[in-house]
Amino acid sequence: MRLADIAARCGGEVLGDPDVLISQVATLRGARPGEVAFIAHPRYRAELAATRASAVILGEADRAATALPRIVCKDPYACFARVSALLNPAPAVAAGIDAAAVVSPAARVAPTASIGAACVVGAGAVVGEGASLGAGCVIGEDARIGPDSRLHARVTVYPHCVIGARSIVHSGAVIGADGFGFAPDGGRWLKIPQIGRVVVGDDVEIGANTTIDRGAIEDTVIEDGVKLDNQIQIGHNCRIGAHSAIAGCVGIAGSTTVGRHCMIGGAAMIGGHLAIADGVVLAGGSTVTKSIERPGTYVGVIPAEEARDWRHMVAALRGLERLTARVRELERRLRREEGGA
Amino acid sequence: MRLADIAARCGGEVLGDPDVLISQVATLRGARPGEVAFIAHPRYRAELAATRASAVILGEADRAATALPRIVCKDPYACFARVSALLNPAPAVAAGIDAAAVVSPAARVAPTASIGAACVVGAGAVVGEGASLGAGCVIGEDARIGPDSRLHARVTVYPHCVIGARSIVHSGAVIGADGFGFAPDGGRWLKIPQIGRVVVGDDVEIGANTTIDRGAIEDTVIEDGVKLDNQIQIGHNCRIGAHSAIAGCVGIAGSTTVGRHCMIGGAAMIGGHLAIADGVVLAGGSTVTKSIERPGTYVGVIPAEEARDWRHMVAALRGLERLTARVRELERRLRREEGGA
Amino acid sequence: MRLADIAARCGGEVLGDPDVLISQVATLRGARPGEVAFIAHPRYRAELAATRASAVILGEADRAATALPRIVCKDPYACFARVSALLNPAPAVAAGIDAAAVVSPAARVAPTASIGAACVVGAGAVVGEGASLGAGCVIGEDARIGPDSRLHARVTVYPHCVIGARSIVHSGAVIGADGFGFAPDGGRWLKIPQIGRVVVGDDVEIGANTTIDRGAIEDTVIEDGVKLDNQIQIGHNCRIGAHSAIAGCVGIAGSTTVGRHCMIGGAAMIGGHLAIADGVVLAGGSTVTKSIERPGTYVGVIPAEEARDWRHMVAALRGLERLTARVRELERRLRREEGGA
Repeated sequence: MRLADIAARCGGEVLGDPDVLISQVATLRGARPGEVAFIAHPRYRAELAATRASAVILGEADRAATALPRIVCKDPYACFARVSALLNPAPAVAAGIDAAAVVSPAARVAPTASIGAACVVGAGAVVGEGASLGAGCVIGEDARIGPDSRLHARVTVYPHCVIGARSIVHSGAVIGADGFGFAPDGGRWLKIPQIGRVVVGDDVEIGANTTIDRGAIEDTVIEDGVKLDNQIQIGHNCRIGAHSAIAGCVGIAGSTTVGRHCMIGGAAMIGGHLAIADGVVLAGGSTVTKSIERPGTYVGVIPAEEARDWRHMVAALRGLERLTARVRELERRLRREEGGA
Repeated sequence: MRLADIAARCGGEVLGDPDVLISQVATLRGARPGEVAFIAHPRYRAELAATRASAVILGEADRAATALPRIVCKDPYACFARVSALLNPAPAVAAGIDAAAVVSPAARVAPTASIGAACVVGAGAVVGEGASLGAGCVIGEDARIGPDSRLHARVTVYPHCVIGARSIVHSGAVIGADGFGFAPDGGRWLKIPQIGRVVVGDDVEIGANTTIDRGAIEDTVIEDGVKLDNQIQIGHNCRIGAHSAIAGCVGIAGSTTVGRHCMIGGAAMIGGHLAIADGVVLAGGSTVTKSIERPGTYVGVIPAEEARDWRHMVAALRGLERLTARVRELERRLRREEGGA
Repeated sequence: MRLADIAARCGGEVLGDPDVLISQVATLRGARPGEVAFIAHPRYRAELAATRASAVILGEADRAATALPRIVCKDPYACFARVSALLNPAPAVAAGIDAAAVVSPAARVAPTASIGAACVVGAGAVVGEGASLGAGCVIGEDARIGPDSRLHARVTVYPHCVIGARSIVHSGAVIGADGFGFAPDGGRWLKIPQIGRVVVGDDVEIGANTTIDRGAIEDTVIEDGVKLDNQIQIGHNCRIGAHSAIAGCVGIAGSTTVGRHCMIGGAAMIGGHLAIADGVVLAGGSTVTKSIERPGTYVGVIPAEEARDWRHMVAALRGLERLTARVRELERRLRREEGGA
């Protein structure tokens, strides 16, 4: 594809030869002729001189940083995303139900949908136009998969749960298992039936082996445009606001609401029954035990150190209460001393 | 169902119209006519006035807090659990082996058991009366699934492992993968065959994508009544005491024993070769590196703060050793000063 | 098997009756006659007197610690691993493709490979000699499984990914799902196609429900001999150096390199775009936010305490900045006092 044609579809101004042919995206360092690389961060600028890429995507500030054919744009990373999507369209999936799938006669599968081998689709389930289920997916009774959504291999959607349009679910994800609801009763636990659903919006992505529990009574809701990485656990009755992005290994306990446009770093843990405001950025590894009412950046991690330094620091921390008392005593004595002087 | 009939089966005293008909449970806020709500926490009392529920379950202290028909009981949450279980019985599963399941002729499947499509059951495996396997489960050779246990879709039970009666296992759980056992040998790792089993008791619940490793030599044991949430990892040779409840994302390293009636908060991490006493409550996100010998509540988390406050705090923490030295020096100088006065 | 024959194959010197017959390994405490136990740690020496084992594997220092037939060797744990592997060979899997597997006619499956029931193998995929796929595995288009590798039940290998020779992958693992790559674009997220692969070396072990994301542009690489426990998440474009071992629940964010011969403790979290040197030992539960340039042991965890002690400590920590200011003020006043004396 000609560089000029790419820019016409993805935005940006072409400098240099507009006719150079581009077949793939690449990193500056790994690029081969015929590929387009990009600079989204100044730290990579040094690699520009040595790149073998046939063209580069870069920001206004870098417009003169190379003589290579280039697309100059406001936001090179977003432009690169568009170019890569153009050059790497999702592989087409053949419409139809694989002979080795088991689809209930009482399910409704759109003619343009694709159901892979070893899938099992329950009675009353609906699979929309253009949707595809990879091999080994299990769709429970009365669940709904929206149009053009793509479930990769081995996804489970429990009965009655809903996935919107154009969403992507990766392998091993489990949507709609029972929430963790038990009432203590004389030293034992009584199971509370989990009768809510999981309702996932449009344009959502859900990572591999992520789990989202169904609501206890009402629904667990993942709003439009949310992006969830791998191995995330979302408890029953949570609501994740539109366009929030959550990195891998995050756990969110039940009945917590995360606002819109939040960014939650990997392995952060958020307690139950909390509300996180819109626009909150939470650093990876942080633990949240109280609601966060204002947008902003929040952190809760003490980075690892060499074992000896860390041990001294922890020992000093364990002695901190006593140190506080010693300072109080010093203040008292010094006051007396000053008074006596 | 009449309110009086519900109370007769679930306990509690009926006040107001005993003939009101109830078809479902609900929250106070979400209830529609024909539904019964409950108050298990005073914080929800304010919602009582506006509820559209036809009846309410509440505690003795709240008996006069509404004019609605109501069930008054000692423990409204446990009562609600019973009422919900009465109104939402687990869906019946049809006895028999799905035509698309692959069951070894050398397996023993009880006539009242249910084996879903795309299940694979190995030689020597036993599936008890009334047990059900959701679609896509894999039961290894000589594994045993006890009567009335329910495995949801896509559960793996490795060879020789045992699940007791009336237990529930959610989708994606893996019972009996090899423990992480390797001996270092000249810069490489020698695999130690993991020849123990996982033995799960009765009335256990295991969450989605939770993993429980088989023992290295002897067994990993999950005692009766244990409740495990999603994405928990339990290492080889652990023993989890009866009726303990463990929230999502918890990791327990190998050879650790957790006592009976413990409550482990989400994302807590417990090191290997430890013993946790009966009745321990561990706050979510805590890390345990030593055995806990007495019941009680244990915590190990510093909650996240706004980034600037947190950074100052961490900087002060990094300077804590020096601060301790400065206080020591102050004490020395002040003693001299006092002596000289 | 005679003890002498075992030692001949696994190394070590036999003391006592070389003809004693051994059929299985055991712990000192659990051993029955006919079994061989081992002492790899002095803490178990006390159990030696009471063991019913027919033989014991122990180190040079313990050669006279028992009168039982014994194998004396330099490294009893490695010797035990060899003995156990000898007595517990991996169960043979029957060559051939199960009638209930779905293998593309355009896949290449070696005649000695074994494909379990409900497996789905895509076009262009290659399964090497002696490799085996447990029930319900899904192998994407053009993926390659090396000779003698063993995938347990329900593993997903996405298209184009590669697994080397003699590797083991446990149930529920997902190799090659999309990395978490999105560009912000006016309050929404643009998906960046993830066009790299996952390339797993030889003699690697991957635990249950572990996920390894495919590279964004270039590959994610797991080098030879790496051992990964359960529920580990490895982001796109990571490289894990040869013979490193990573315990359960660890998360490693994208584009991070872990050196060779590292040991990463359970539930540690390593941020993105970092480099961890060869030979680093990281304590479980630690968080790493900066590159680690030198081998050594690193820690980042404050162990849990009884709730009251912990709360006091956290309160003191919150007051640490003020305490530092108070010490500064004391120093100032004491200087004045000293000057005035």
